[in-house]
Amino acid sequence: MQEKSFVLKGDVCCSKDPKTLAFQKDGFLVCLRGLSAGVFAELPARYRALPCRDYSGRLILPGLTDLHVHAPQYGYRGLGMDLELLEWLDTRTFPAEARYGDPEYGEKAYRDFVEDVKRGPNTRVCVFATVHVPATLKLMDLLEASGLKAFVGKVNMDRNCPDGLREKDAASSLAATLEWLEKCRGRYQNVRPILTPRFIPSCTDRLLEGLGRIQREYGLPVQSHLSENLEEIAWVKKLCPDAAFYGEAYRRHGLFGGAAKTVMAHCVYSGEEEIRLMKEQGVYVAHCPMSNTNLSSGIAPVRRYLEEGLALGLGSDVAGGYATSIFRAMADAIQVSKLRWRLSDQSLKALTLPEAFYLGTIGGGSFFGKTGSFDQGNELDALVVDDRPFNGGQELTIPERLERVIYLSGDQHIEKKFVAGRALW
Amino acid sequence: MQEKSFVLKGDVCCSKDPKTLAFQKDGFLVCLRGLSAGVFAELPARYRALPCRDYSGRLILPGLTDLHVHAPQYGYRGLGMDLELLEWLDTRTFPAEARYGDPEYGEKAYRDFVEDVKRGPNTRVCVFATVHVPATLKLMDLLEASGLKAFVGKVNMDRNCPDGLREKDAASSLAATLEWLEKCRGRYQNVRPILTPRFIPSCTDRLLEGLGRIQREYGLPVQSHLSENLEEIAWVKKLCPDAAFYGEAYRRHGLFGGAAKTVMAHCVYSGEEEIRLMKEQGVYVAHCPMSNTNLSSGIAPVRRYLEEGLALGLGSDVAGGYATSIFRAMADAIQVSKLRWRLSDQSLKALTLPEAFYLGTIGGGSFFGKTGSFDQGNELDALVVDDRPFNGGQELTIPERLERVIYLSGDQHIEKKFVAGRALW
Repeated sequence: MQEKSFVLKGDVCCSKDPKTLAFQKDGFLVCLRGLSAGVFAELPARYRALPCRDYSGRLILPGLTDLHVHAPQYGYRGLGMDLELLEWLDTRTFPAEARYGDPEYGEKAYRDFVEDVKRGPNTRVCVFATVHVPATLKLMDLLEASGLKAFVGKVNMDRNCPDGLREKDAASSLAATLEWLEKCRGRYQNVRPILTPRFIPSCTDRLLEGLGRIQREYGLPVQSHLSENLEEIAWVKKLCPDAAFYGEAYRRHGLFGGAAKTVMAHCVYSGEEEIRLMKEQGVYVAHCPMSNTNLSSGIAPVRRYLEEGLALGLGSDVAGGYATSIFRAMADAIQVSKLRWRLSDQSLKALTLPEAFYLGTIGGGSFFGKTGSFDQGNELDALVVDDRPFNGGQELTIPERLERVIYLSGDQHIEKKFVAGRALW
Repeated sequence: MQEKSFVLKGDVCCSKDPKTLAFQKDGFLVCLRGLSAGVFAELPARYRALPCRDYSGRLILPGLTDLHVHAPQYGYRGLGMDLELLEWLDTRTFPAEARYGDPEYGEKAYRDFVEDVKRGPNTRVCVFATVHVPATLKLMDLLEASGLKAFVGKVNMDRNCPDGLREKDAASSLAATLEWLEKCRGRYQNVRPILTPRFIPSCTDRLLEGLGRIQREYGLPVQSHLSENLEEIAWVKKLCPDAAFYGEAYRRHGLFGGAAKTVMAHCVYSGEEEIRLMKEQGVYVAHCPMSNTNLSSGIAPVRRYLEEGLALGLGSDVAGGYATSIFRAMADAIQVSKLRWRLSDQSLKALTLPEAFYLGTIGGGSFFGKTGSFDQGNELDALVVDDRPFNGGQELTIPERLERVIYLSGDQHIEKKFVAGRALW
């Protein structure tokens, strides 16, 4: 089905706000030229001429957004999980990423990543590539062809990483970035570049300053890491003694929200000042519960961020996380919030199912614009999920079925997937 | 393949002890009349006449043991996960279990549970049924036919649960237990009965005393719950003011190890005295990380239990947990141990991959006798896992491949499964 105007019939469910699910049994979801025209209990006469796909008995849900994922780490997900962040970067990440200097290797490896995401529930992804321009363009080509929507970043790093991976200096990193941006120009419909300084320890001030200039010139968004791990934070403090807190080290170069739309992964240990600045600047938090668990980083105070009204979504952070699915990230976000409540801070209640669903749909989706729910005018990303195999004929409400999809479904239960009104398969 | 003497060729891996993996690339695992004759780099001449199945390139692992699972809760796994233990029992568990008064319903529902376990990586399970004798026998019949090995318990509960589920009094609960045991006699090869007082709050002293008598008369094993949740523990204290700690309330009726082989689920909050008594009495701990997370119970100090040398295995605790696979329980056990270390107690290091694998194989398997590894003379439970789909041609060591199986594999990757030398499919 390549037409972008059609009707889907089924049991439709999406978030209204973090506390509220909207759902319609045997509803009609109308797509007009890739945008949602809304959900209806009866199909309005004006839409009756549109092709209608009958998915009665299945759930129709919004596509999910992965706000933080490392494509080159996909190949070694689920390996070396007994390590903490800095040791894991040295042992696993950097040697693996160095191989992407060979664009042919990169294409082959990135193909596996893109195929996985295409089969799964995510429709939009915010992706780190590596420092290498040719392989990054291969990744973007593959994502473009997949029909997924993506922000993709060529990574910048000019210090504190192995020779085979470190860019020679700030100037050559910036030159490679400009070359990459030139090559992106006019090349993609679904994929957009995003500036990607890896994290403060791997970027000199000169590099960050230059990226700030490029940001202003090109009006690009920014992604990076923030306050993930205690050792990392101590290191940043040493590297930037004049920055009052970690986020400040980005902000002073214009890489922390405001005009530069920004998403920062983790924020496990953001303090009061950092939270205030993120709020002021509209910085998105990509909460990555599985990665923060696997790398023993800790548990981010997501309830606090929700209460503050921070922009907030979920990230798989493969390969800190071992699964790409944002359904899994929803389940994990709930689980770790329960443990945080029980073990360390009873002032912040656990996340609820509707809240986690909101974060994985509208929360992260809004980084891409109007998407993540079926509100009229939104770009229509939808999943048709056949939850009958694990419901065994039980009579369940739509919210109950949603809960089971989040906890129990696998990619094999996704019957059909649409991104901005286009069927991916 | 119904013959019980054969050879499996492939990449064999099992635990030697909690710290050590034993593995053999292109090895030969020999099964003689259901027992392991060992693993060999070259096939000894004396076994060359046996039928040999070539699983080159796949991993051959021991079957896993689920030390704690509620079969009647399988149908609502992944539902109501926003509740804590006592509320969840009232809202979800008791109404669901009441339906097993109808043996036909029970047979249908139990069939789904048994099919799931049969397809997955577990070969041995310690199962709670409900109070109902006919449905419990149906479950045992289904498990017997599946080829899985199981301990199954008709549950006892004569207080603090809804009318439809509560047994009238201690005498009738004991009479039903004896009736059930009589009906089990001579009926099963793979399945054995286990005494199953639900937990202290639902059993009067008279009932526990009677179960202690039955235990001594029949020499049966025992399973129950222990020190799972703070409210539950406070309740037990109120109900048994003269018991110094929770475990003591079982012990004084002869239901806590010693001659009564016992497994207690959870032990999240076991104190010094309770730990000492468990050790003295050889009581098994069934560590259920996913359930303890979902029900906001907390995180058990498993490293401590390992160091003390307690008997210890893993449980899915479906439906406090939503997944039956003990591979998942291994991953969860590692993850929660990392969070426990990070958030509340840096004196207990996180579990390692070999330790988690040990717990899910030898640790729990030993409750069933000699099984859980390929040591000579052990009952041979084996899984053939095809990990090629997620390794994408990478050259990995066997321990690395094992790590990825634990984190990434699903039931679809299990190519073949043997229990005590018998192929299940």
